[in-house]
Amino acid sequence: MTQAAHAGVFVSFEGIDGSGKSTQARALADGLQKQGHDIVLTREPGGAAGAEEIRRLLVEGAPERWSAETEILLFNAARRDHLEKTIRPALAAGRIVISDRFADSTRVYQGAARASLRPLVDKLHDLVIGIEPDLTFLIDMDPDAALTRGLARHSGEDRFEELGAGFQTALRAGFLDLAKAQPERICVIDGARPQDVVAEDIMAHMRDWLDVRAT
Amino acid sequence: MTQAAHAGVFVSFEGIDGSGKSTQARALADGLQKQGHDIVLTREPGGAAGAEEIRRLLVEGAPERWSAETEILLFNAARRDHLEKTIRPALAAGRIVISDRFADSTRVYQGAARASLRPLVDKLHDLVIGIEPDLTFLIDMDPDAALTRGLARHSGEDRFEELGAGFQTALRAGFLDLAKAQPERICVIDGARPQDVVAEDIMAHMRDWLDVRAT
Repeated sequence: MTQAAHAGVFVSFEGIDGSGKSTQARALADGLQKQGHDIVLTREPGGAAGAEEIRRLLVEGAPERWSAETEILLFNAARRDHLEKTIRPALAAGRIVISDRFADSTRVYQGAARASLRPLVDKLHDLVIGIEPDLTFLIDMDPDAALTRGLARHSGEDRFEELGAGFQTALRAGFLDLAKAQPERICVIDGARPQDVVAEDIMAHMRDWLDVRAT
Repeated sequence: MTQAAHAGVFVSFEGIDGSGKSTQARALADGLQKQGHDIVLTREPGGAAGAEEIRRLLVEGAPERWSAETEILLFNAARRDHLEKTIRPALAAGRIVISDRFADSTRVYQGAARASLRPLVDKLHDLVIGIEPDLTFLIDMDPDAALTRGLARHSGEDRFEELGAGFQTALRAGFLDLAKAQPERICVIDGARPQDVVAEDIMAHMRDWLDVRAT
């Protein structure tokens, strides 16, 4: 995969449901904005008008309405739209894009559901996406604690959150495996601490990363 | 590509907009049903509950809302759902599936829009579809005549029909190229004749095909 050079910075947040990654993505966006950075805070699936329509097909309706293969195609269609309409234009304009989930979620969720799906996920990513975040914060957390948090904020889009603690344990392991394989991109953050402590930790890592990049 | 063996027969109809393929698909379904065959008449994009929802994303809204790449992903998501929920179960049950459009439409429409899209179309088909009809009727027709017919039945889903005669000429050439490359599968039917003559011609071909298969 060739990583296209761009003027901006592409940051993603990953983690199991209820890990607090959405809260942390927002906190990082706010913090960087206060420091004068130009931020686009976005999310997956969704993040563009068309992609949000595809999101509705994915998160609404019966959990078993799509096979894993169809679901992977829909996630990639939404991601392609998100990339074209939101992420690439913002990166080209030199902005910092912060996305609540990106391709790692597809790798880990589909891989945890059925390991044999990973080759399909990887081939599709190479064919139609072909970009990775510059930096990914993986909010790592004990599934039991995360599940309690996640179910507490009942959103009507909780298909994944209802999959149970056993599945969340497999997801956590999947995310940690990715981080082990790509330590230069994926920064593992201990999400069990108080929210403001986690936010400070992430901001410190982000500042270091921006400093290194500036030199 | 390995063609999976199945008890049923998979027939598709292809052609440019206004060529009369939907009418002819219905006529063949009616004719075979009268002869005691067990028929499933279906269409693309769509042909299953989920696939029809994806169809709405494809045919409604502004023509430029999706890039070609996103559109190809959505077509494949719809086709995969159609295949799993409608086509494969019917073929396994020994029925004759007649589909108004299938993968050839994606090859020809996307290829006519931008020739460089064909490798992506082919790779996706191999990855997630992997089946071809046993028999395809290509209703061949002069684009000017077809376009007049097509626009006459204004359906609200006429994005492709509004693309104009120049594009339809490229589509016709694309379909004929496919037929030349796969003459054993794709049967070219002269669609300029009266509808009942065309229908008789198709029924004769279909009967021959079934006879050969039975021997």
